[in-house]
Amino acid sequence: MLYDTIIRLLEKRNFKVIKEIFENMNEADIADLFGNFHDNEDVDKRDFPVLFRLLPKDAAADVFSYMEPDMQELLINSFTDKELEDVIDDLFIDDTVDMIEEMPANVVSRILKSADTQTRRQINQILKYPKDSAGSIMTTEYVYLDKSMTVRDALEKIRHVGFVKETVYTLYVTEDRKLIGVLSVLDILTSDDNDIIGDIMQTNVITVDTLEDKELVAKQFEKYDFLALPVVDKEQRIVGIVTFDDAMDVMQDENTEDFSHMAGMAPIEDSYFKTSVFKHARNRIAWLLVLMLSATLTGTIITRYETAFATVPLLVSFIPMLTGTGGNCGSQTSTMIIRGMSLGEVKLKDFFKVVFKEFRIALIVSVILALVNGIRIYVTYTFFIKDKTDAPFLLAMTVSLAIVATVIISKLIGCMLPMAAKRLHLDPALMAAPLISTIVDTCSTLVFFNIAMLIFDIHMI
Amino acid sequence: MLYDTIIRLLEKRNFKVIKEIFENMNEADIADLFGNFHDNEDVDKRDFPVLFRLLPKDAAADVFSYMEPDMQELLINSFTDKELEDVIDDLFIDDTVDMIEEMPANVVSRILKSADTQTRRQINQILKYPKDSAGSIMTTEYVYLDKSMTVRDALEKIRHVGFVKETVYTLYVTEDRKLIGVLSVLDILTSDDNDIIGDIMQTNVITVDTLEDKELVAKQFEKYDFLALPVVDKEQRIVGIVTFDDAMDVMQDENTEDFSHMAGMAPIEDSYFKTSVFKHARNRIAWLLVLMLSATLTGTIITRYETAFATVPLLVSFIPMLTGTGGNCGSQTSTMIIRGMSLGEVKLKDFFKVVFKEFRIALIVSVILALVNGIRIYVTYTFFIKDKTDAPFLLAMTVSLAIVATVIISKLIGCMLPMAAKRLHLDPALMAAPLISTIVDTCSTLVFFNIAMLIFDIHMI
Repeated sequence: MLYDTIIRLLEKRNFKVIKEIFENMNEADIADLFGNFHDNEDVDKRDFPVLFRLLPKDAAADVFSYMEPDMQELLINSFTDKELEDVIDDLFIDDTVDMIEEMPANVVSRILKSADTQTRRQINQILKYPKDSAGSIMTTEYVYLDKSMTVRDALEKIRHVGFVKETVYTLYVTEDRKLIGVLSVLDILTSDDNDIIGDIMQTNVITVDTLEDKELVAKQFEKYDFLALPVVDKEQRIVGIVTFDDAMDVMQDENTEDFSHMAGMAPIEDSYFKTSVFKHARNRIAWLLVLMLSATLTGTIITRYETAFATVPLLVSFIPMLTGTGGNCGSQTSTMIIRGMSLGEVKLKDFFKVVFKEFRIALIVSVILALVNGIRIYVTYTFFIKDKTDAPFLLAMTVSLAIVATVIISKLIGCMLPMAAKRLHLDPALMAAPLISTIVDTCSTLVFFNIAMLIFDIHMI
Repeated sequence: MLYDTIIRLLEKRNFKVIKEIFENMNEADIADLFGNFHDNEDVDKRDFPVLFRLLPKDAAADVFSYMEPDMQELLINSFTDKELEDVIDDLFIDDTVDMIEEMPANVVSRILKSADTQTRRQINQILKYPKDSAGSIMTTEYVYLDKSMTVRDALEKIRHVGFVKETVYTLYVTEDRKLIGVLSVLDILTSDDNDIIGDIMQTNVITVDTLEDKELVAKQFEKYDFLALPVVDKEQRIVGIVTFDDAMDVMQDENTEDFSHMAGMAPIEDSYFKTSVFKHARNRIAWLLVLMLSATLTGTIITRYETAFATVPLLVSFIPMLTGTGGNCGSQTSTMIIRGMSLGEVKLKDFFKVVFKEFRIALIVSVILALVNGIRIYVTYTFFIKDKTDAPFLLAMTVSLAIVATVIISKLIGCMLPMAAKRLHLDPALMAAPLISTIVDTCSTLVFFNIAMLIFDIHMI
């Protein structure tokens, strides 16, 4: 509705009202609105810069930081040098770096040219950290104090440092750039004006290393409920801070990555619709090929047991149920373990504890499944379909025993593989449903035919 | 290491040093330490209250709030009335409510008895909101101001309200309890002492309704990067706030729930190890039973085509590869769509856009898979294994065509089912890998045998 209103106002070139609407909107919502315009082909792309110039001056950079990279690029290309300078000046360093990572080279060089020397140095500093490190997601904008300052001095510094948002709510006390304490704005507010920072600061500071994996950084936020976490170099000198909103993004990206891996895909970096059909296909094909070719192993096994299903043709009809059940049991377990490890609840040293627990769970589950299915088969082939087999009890017995074996094997594989992957420093999520199903398929088919040949006394030729 | 040190100090009853260690530790870490002691059977449970009493007074409640419910219960049972009162007094209301929800009735009544009248009223107010609503995760501790106050008055109020942590960083301006504006502590700090709150507050306030789903609340945090979000009733009166740390927890719980559903399990509420073997089994058995029984449908289909595999026995050996590939394709797509919907990237109105996109992806993927597999089959049965079939080309053709059909069908089912579930207000994650595999198994087997009968000119009896 708002969207249509603005389109109509834009057609009438009634910029005054649009401007008033923008003044009463949240920045993230305005960025959303621009995104919607971008997806709508009726809106002239040349109007975007016009609309952007209607934004209140203090909101423009914020709106800009919430935008998708393609919209940002379009706007930058339409900006005058002065406009670009203003936006870059108001952006948080970490948002600028995020943007730079998505832009083509010519835009990057324009951005760096518009930044002042100090900002440019800070940008380059963050850009040099490895892709998934704490250094790459930190911002270099934080407030640092001296331990000899008074509360009054500190308040003065906060007031004049000119940052906005939550980056100022935790204050860092440094000595020769080394981090020696932290305190919160609340500590400042509840202290006396003449109190000395060194006396009221907390010296027990939790820090992360610049090269620390960003997922581990996000986990610290979950554990401690911090607003920000200081990033330090090897000499314990503070080089930046990571804020909770970036940690939240890392957490969600990590979850998305796990979901993709567990479904046998390479994770996509953009949203579903922004990713092209070819890229989607490319991300999915590799695992499908590997799994398809490994699945032929199960096929080969089946042909080896031709004698068995020539003697009792009905046997073949239980293969999908057995492999399906095995796959489901395995993926239940692997999902539990992968999730448990990524939340830090399950650790490598718990290996035997996990295996024993899954074994007991498998016993309970398999006995129930075997009973239900055994009874079903016995009743079906004794009372309803009499012409397919003359040994319904043996058939029921064979399938039930195969179920017990399959469930136990698949639950054990389901917990051991992800933990083994972790041990080898691979992503445990790679060892999820698809791979486990394929392995379990082979095992359950083998077990099934061997049990059948024993019970029906069939011999291989 | 620290853990062993404290155990040793505890054995020597050297409480003085333990106390000093605690004074230099983070609260969440101390709670972790208690958790480790609890898992260790060598540590006497009667020592926990002793250890707890060594905590610095201002840290005790914080440590308590980070503890697991069983440890909290153990401690409460050992507390004197006075001690319990002190802890409850220092706890955040939302942490108290979280705790109450996990405690047995006798402990709950002791907790409520130790709370002062106002706290008790607030606890009861939060407890009455539905389980997954914004009301149930909010805290009633927030700072509200009057629009006629000056900045000086506001600072005074913040200083004396006695809350700790981030709940004070966003201030709410009310008029007859109606929420009319917000401002941040930073706004206060950067304003002049005599400025009037009504003039510097922001009137464009984003709120959530008390009954709003907590997942939608968490999404707002991701979008706006807020520290806290006000919760209002139908008359726009503020009743509490949700803070970012609770939103983060909701997000992680929601992700865990999705993972569980997508692997065909009921989500567990506790951690992996805290949940008993029986409970794990109970959470997994339902879907396994349903899926096992539906998988027999595929078996029934196979028996119907007995003529086909009596004529060309080799056909049977391709079933695991086909159903496996179909299952993997389907779960790739369903995972993408379920994740896309839960992140808000894919919406119900995009139904046809999604179906068309998946259709094109399926075309590319299926042609590659069919080619690779077709060539493999042709080469294998022409040059290496010559005695199994006299028509390797027809066989390769049959399997390749079946692959194309299976991939397309499974990708379409994989995107349509989760969207249909959402439309019916079910959790889309329920329509994940296991269910889709089972459905795809049936479809792919049917398609395969029909193509085979056409190509090999086999007729049903």
